[in-house]
Amino acid sequence: MSAIEDLVTELARLPGIGRKTAQRLTFHLLKQPPEAAGRLADAIRRVRDQVAACRVCGNLTDQDPCAICADPRRDAGLLCVVEEAGDVSAIEGTGRFRGRYHVLGGRLSPLDGVGPEALRLDALLARVGNGSGGDVREVIVATNPSMEGEVTATYVQQLLKPTGVRITRIARGLPVGGDLEYADGVTIAQALDARRDMSEGE
Amino acid sequence: MSAIEDLVTELARLPGIGRKTAQRLTFHLLKQPPEAAGRLADAIRRVRDQVAACRVCGNLTDQDPCAICADPRRDAGLLCVVEEAGDVSAIEGTGRFRGRYHVLGGRLSPLDGVGPEALRLDALLARVGNGSGGDVREVIVATNPSMEGEVTATYVQQLLKPTGVRITRIARGLPVGGDLEYADGVTIAQALDARRDMSEGE
Repeated sequence: MSAIEDLVTELARLPGIGRKTAQRLTFHLLKQPPEAAGRLADAIRRVRDQVAACRVCGNLTDQDPCAICADPRRDAGLLCVVEEAGDVSAIEGTGRFRGRYHVLGGRLSPLDGVGPEALRLDALLARVGNGSGGDVREVIVATNPSMEGEVTATYVQQLLKPTGVRITRIARGLPVGGDLEYADGVTIAQALDARRDMSEGE
Repeated sequence: MSAIEDLVTELARLPGIGRKTAQRLTFHLLKQPPEAAGRLADAIRRVRDQVAACRVCGNLTDQDPCAICADPRRDAGLLCVVEEAGDVSAIEGTGRFRGRYHVLGGRLSPLDGVGPEALRLDALLARVGNGSGGDVREVIVATNPSMEGEVTATYVQQLLKPTGVRITRIARGLPVGGDLEYADGVTIAQALDARRDMSEGE
């Protein structure tokens, strides 16, 4: 197989990248100065070689513990439980959360054979239960608003119930900038159920 | 900058890949076994190191002359002129063309300062004019159906006129599977102008 074909095949393995896009990307790289392709190849190798899960929270990082766990200004009493490391980036991107994280490494999915033992649930219970990460006051369950995410959220809630910690779930509703006309029925129903009284203010 | 941030930045430089997609791809690579990232990095390096323009047609290849120019079964009398090497892949993908190619390496674009001297036009004239690639009977101008592609097509036509070769232009019209309702007016107008008589058959 030719070098071009090879790269197209490798790129097309990536999620959301079809063969046509992979071809376009390959020819784009060929049009760039060779340093551009070199930088990309190096960055991929460095991520592969240097990045691993943070021993405390499970976030992917090239330091251990990760920058968030190591930051004394982050509120150790507020723990946000997410499915994947990518979710940490998404929440960090908002700049609105000053607590710490716990990455489960997936979601419960009996159909795919993912049970509780495959997720970092023992580590979560240990963090909350014995207060090893400081005294946790509140656990925000931010698993995805999908069926599996909800099942996982319920499991986390049951698991942590005996510790007496406050457990909250991120809100569901219409996305900001969304359009009622294009929203699916389940989202609209949840937005209605979770409606808030405007006269009381935010 | 962290290794993750680095890779996100490099991926986001690629065309059509925004920061969110770059993040998704990075976390995808991190979830794969390390060999997957290694194969991708290697493929990028090999393309960078081994691929260059074919001396005859300008197609990007890791052999010189490229597999198409070197194939004696390809009709050397039929030359398809395209803007970029990616266009060769697109046409080869159809399996319908058995001639050879000439890659211009771009399109005339006075606003971007791309004049005739930046394209492989002398090489085209030499191939057609002195029959170095066999006796060329027909040149199919397959530059893009954009304004700049049309200007380039007209330039090629003027350039080759003195050689007396037959010059054709790929057809414009509604794309197969397209929908009149969503087609732009210019395309519909061209599809009307280029209409064919159905009673005469294809």
